[in-house]
Amino acid sequence: MSQLLKVQNFIVSSDGVAAGEDQDQSLERPFGLDGPERMFAWAGATASWPNRTDPGGSRGLDDYFTRDFHHNIGAEIMGRNKFGPQRGPWSEDEEWRGWWGDEPPFHTPVFVMTHHKRPSFTLSDTTFHFVEGDPATILEQAREAAQGKDVRLGGGVTTIREFLDADLVDTLHVAVSPLKYGSGLRLWESPDELRDRFHLDIVPSPSGVTHHLFWRK
Amino acid sequence: MSQLLKVQNFIVSSDGVAAGEDQDQSLERPFGLDGPERMFAWAGATASWPNRTDPGGSRGLDDYFTRDFHHNIGAEIMGRNKFGPQRGPWSEDEEWRGWWGDEPPFHTPVFVMTHHKRPSFTLSDTTFHFVEGDPATILEQAREAAQGKDVRLGGGVTTIREFLDADLVDTLHVAVSPLKYGSGLRLWESPDELRDRFHLDIVPSPSGVTHHLFWRK
Repeated sequence: MSQLLKVQNFIVSSDGVAAGEDQDQSLERPFGLDGPERMFAWAGATASWPNRTDPGGSRGLDDYFTRDFHHNIGAEIMGRNKFGPQRGPWSEDEEWRGWWGDEPPFHTPVFVMTHHKRPSFTLSDTTFHFVEGDPATILEQAREAAQGKDVRLGGGVTTIREFLDADLVDTLHVAVSPLKYGSGLRLWESPDELRDRFHLDIVPSPSGVTHHLFWRK
Repeated sequence: MSQLLKVQNFIVSSDGVAAGEDQDQSLERPFGLDGPERMFAWAGATASWPNRTDPGGSRGLDDYFTRDFHHNIGAEIMGRNKFGPQRGPWSEDEEWRGWWGDEPPFHTPVFVMTHHKRPSFTLSDTTFHFVEGDPATILEQAREAAQGKDVRLGGGVTTIREFLDADLVDTLHVAVSPLKYGSGLRLWESPDELRDRFHLDIVPSPSGVTHHLFWRK
């Protein structure tokens, strides 16, 4: 069995928007969008949401997706803008260690794509590496680190589009929220754009989101 | 977090039948039903079906359910009729070691409910224990063996009904097949019977089965 590259629990609006334009991201607005928590509410309501601190939560359809987050995952790849709002060289920003506090929810090596060098560091059982290269090269590094397990492609949207353009993605789970943003960075104009290369199950959830499950033909 | 008791990937017909009547089970007819493989086809088509031997298989909605089979499970409880077609004392039948060959798909301790004593035995990384007692007592043994993980209630249908009657089940995933049997052992007349105690998500799959996801209120 080969090592898959998987997009999991990636959330977009009904018009395909996953983040604001590049200049809209800031420390206060990690997604550069108004009220992004409305898009994430379905995931936060589940029992298996990785950031859940209290017991409880739903165990219906949506929970299968949040529960699957760690299944057989040995590494994550993310774009620099998922890691933080900074741009350019790190120099003054090397104390930035991501949005996730001392216990990041990844628990594997994480490869952050950036043109700007920075030493690796470890928080709890997550180690962040800062790497430059084309998607295929970085996937190769992540696969090696994953030691036979699958690799999660964590986003953001620009990074996912780069890996889709390079035809390196094996499966995608995209949760489409009923919310509409009108402008911002889009994953797609329509999910139909991927149908030539992927099978697609479209699964409406009682929570209001519609899960889109793609796997390679 | 408490240890859940979970029914997973349990399959019934559209009229709630999961097995033939008691006397209809035999070595040749483990389910005592005509053509039960038609009810299981959705699961066998997925990439994560535990018994899959060749690569390939679908990675859409149905695969989330088969993929979840081992998630945080530390023990299984099953009725004697899931373990084999024999009735009464084991004496001549102690060479029967289940339907699953040398590599059973459980990989945990399994507690087989029976009034008839028999020594435990191990096949690969699955150990079968033969235990007598009411559901609460057996669940206690299984929880201890599961070492903090959840316990799977594997069936058959009579066993699941016993644990439901004792109000010990926390979550159920029941896949309802479009097939109708008319007679046999039923899980329910209607899934609505469980709505007083459980939340219910009803999720139609493109494969034709309808997943019913219950979790305790």
